[in-house]
Amino acid sequence: MTTSPSSTRLLSRFVNPARAQWAEILQRPVIDARSLEQRVQPILDAVKERGDQAIKDFTKQFDGVEVEDIKVSREELEASESLVSTELREAIHTAELNIRVFHESQRDVVKKIETTPGVTCWRESRPITKVGLYIPGGTAPLFSTILMLAVPAKVAGCKEIVLCTPPNKEGKIHPAILYAAYLLGIKTVIKAGGAQAIAAMAYGTESVPKVYKIFGPGNQYVTAAKQMITKDGVAIDMPAGPSEVQVIADETANPAFVAADLLSQAEHGVDSQVVLVATNEQKIDEVEDELQKQLAALPRREMAEKALENSCSIVLSSLDDIMDLTNAYAPEHLIIQVQKYSDLVSRVENAGSVFLGPYTPESAGDYASGTNHTLPTNGYAMAYSGVSLDSFIKKITFQEITKEGIERLGPTIEIMAQEEELFAHKNAVTLRINS
Amino acid sequence: MTTSPSSTRLLSRFVNPARAQWAEILQRPVIDARSLEQRVQPILDAVKERGDQAIKDFTKQFDGVEVEDIKVSREELEASESLVSTELREAIHTAELNIRVFHESQRDVVKKIETTPGVTCWRESRPITKVGLYIPGGTAPLFSTILMLAVPAKVAGCKEIVLCTPPNKEGKIHPAILYAAYLLGIKTVIKAGGAQAIAAMAYGTESVPKVYKIFGPGNQYVTAAKQMITKDGVAIDMPAGPSEVQVIADETANPAFVAADLLSQAEHGVDSQVVLVATNEQKIDEVEDELQKQLAALPRREMAEKALENSCSIVLSSLDDIMDLTNAYAPEHLIIQVQKYSDLVSRVENAGSVFLGPYTPESAGDYASGTNHTLPTNGYAMAYSGVSLDSFIKKITFQEITKEGIERLGPTIEIMAQEEELFAHKNAVTLRINS
Repeated sequence: MTTSPSSTRLLSRFVNPARAQWAEILQRPVIDARSLEQRVQPILDAVKERGDQAIKDFTKQFDGVEVEDIKVSREELEASESLVSTELREAIHTAELNIRVFHESQRDVVKKIETTPGVTCWRESRPITKVGLYIPGGTAPLFSTILMLAVPAKVAGCKEIVLCTPPNKEGKIHPAILYAAYLLGIKTVIKAGGAQAIAAMAYGTESVPKVYKIFGPGNQYVTAAKQMITKDGVAIDMPAGPSEVQVIADETANPAFVAADLLSQAEHGVDSQVVLVATNEQKIDEVEDELQKQLAALPRREMAEKALENSCSIVLSSLDDIMDLTNAYAPEHLIIQVQKYSDLVSRVENAGSVFLGPYTPESAGDYASGTNHTLPTNGYAMAYSGVSLDSFIKKITFQEITKEGIERLGPTIEIMAQEEELFAHKNAVTLRINS
Repeated sequence: MTTSPSSTRLLSRFVNPARAQWAEILQRPVIDARSLEQRVQPILDAVKERGDQAIKDFTKQFDGVEVEDIKVSREELEASESLVSTELREAIHTAELNIRVFHESQRDVVKKIETTPGVTCWRESRPITKVGLYIPGGTAPLFSTILMLAVPAKVAGCKEIVLCTPPNKEGKIHPAILYAAYLLGIKTVIKAGGAQAIAAMAYGTESVPKVYKIFGPGNQYVTAAKQMITKDGVAIDMPAGPSEVQVIADETANPAFVAADLLSQAEHGVDSQVVLVATNEQKIDEVEDELQKQLAALPRREMAEKALENSCSIVLSSLDDIMDLTNAYAPEHLIIQVQKYSDLVSRVENAGSVFLGPYTPESAGDYASGTNHTLPTNGYAMAYSGVSLDSFIKKITFQEITKEGIERLGPTIEIMAQEEELFAHKNAVTLRINS
């Protein structure tokens, strides 16, 4: 392994590292939500016990604002329309349409399967009736995440959608957030953030309906709270971790595009991680030059620079090795900018979402192409999918057996039940055969 | 509400209870795995630190047997074939085939969607490469659960399947378990049970490969361990709870069939729950008579009787009310024995698996019809599906955008990124449009 850190380089560079070194090179920033449990548990307990009042108290304590009514009024929701520019509203509509079309295409057709003559089995989808969406606060309004969560919830047919998001210092919520909620017909928008918002949706309060599944990103307290409420039987979208991108580039890749894609990940936060894998070192040098240039013009320059410190570039000349490394890393976002990118599709085993070819930036999927941007981070792509229509439904199995069917299949069931010493199971069949 | 407990009745009876009372009547036995965390954590830690040796130590301590090699040899697996009767082998083959056919039907077809001209999005399924299956010990060998977990794992294409199950006092595993594993080509069968088995699969040891997702039922220690290892990023099938069935019966229902179905749930364990909902009280009386008769002949009579103590019968004359109550209870198994059962299918919102009509006992789905028997208990059917092919795969989104596509969609992305103050996101688009 040749490691060549250099003061002028933004990314630690590894040239043809041995396989045994990959895991160490690709190590992610360690986040352990467990240490927060002791601080989050009292918040969950307080909301369970004191409902809305506890939320107001925590909002005062953590967000520094007193909120009289935690539920956003219908008037406030309606008024958002005039507070958002026509341009932005049109962009939100376009994105909403694409996201809807793609998630509608994920609907299952019911397939009835006769596994044995007279034994018919099938699955039908049903919406999760009540779902909760969490949208973090901060300087910028993350209205795009509302689209990513509420559109599939609507397509699924969820009856009640609760949205929690923390108010600003004036006790208000950004108009773009309210407008996205209004556009999607979300009636229950709650001014609450942090662990207290998660608790409210998990247990219910006077103003907040209890939901069965909670979605959305958040800080470490939100993450800990989401993990903790699963013990009470409330489902969550997926475990959370810092965001990340991996770009695969060959000699044909445009270094400016690659650099822009890496930076759009890096600007997310100081704990973001970017990994550049190139087939030759020359390409990495070109990307480094572009990174320097583009960074200089970036408002979030400092944050992006910090994120690049957790990041690396790797040279691997063989695409076979590159795909093995990729599947071992299991990136949340994978951008493939190589000449024959279509050849690599079938070789992607572990990733959240994949962006193919020179004109497919991650930001397309982040906002408007139609795919979901709520994706498995932290290597969870090994076992988890991103949010999709599936996340908002249950698939219930149904079966219908005729008299002939149970006569044919019955003996198999009887033998197996007897071997497992479950005689009532056997009897339920025997009685029917003999009837 | 008329409550009529009676010393001769096996099920507490509620006649036309008010809606406000439903939740209390349908309360489930409370199981809280949290109290076990302090006892389970040292087991997880020990396995993480000392690997195979820790497993052997715990096996000696908890299962009362010293096991030299925790991995079942190839010879032992092969020998199982001659130790299982031809009859049982044939039954296992029949069940395996039906389960395979049904789970193969769950494969998705790739649908490429052009959401905007030049913007193409789709999803592709990939297997979770390494999965772990847990099969509890006890007096009877639960080989049927191996079929329910390993068949979809095979259909999905999981590359490594690890199976853990505790050895008996002789350090052996029941031949029916070994045969099911052998039939399905599982090469890594580990003699380990309890929390130590879950730890082994979550963290890996000398003999046990680390897996990305763990499936299967187990006692309270196994359940606690599964919940706990999710914090380390290992996925699990679903949260666990005691098994349950609800039967809906109208005047046409055969009381002997209904009683047999209730008992096949009750014999699972003392914490099982059965709920009988009938359109008239006469039917409940008839079922009670049958319960008494059938119980008398049952080897697990005592266990079943205890389970019936947690259980109840409810009279509700309207099918509308019955379906509302059903969806509020969200039963793991739902058996519908009413004349026009097909009319109720679309009204089932929350359930794990549904059995329709007089000749469709739960035991068909437990063993051999093709549907999966690993289902959401404890009301989790509100948000969770049972195990299916989906449980063993991830769906990865792909997108490919042409130059024309980014020119069309780009302005939408630019506006949204700017509003969210993510300028590198915007720049990744601008650069491509201007190129």
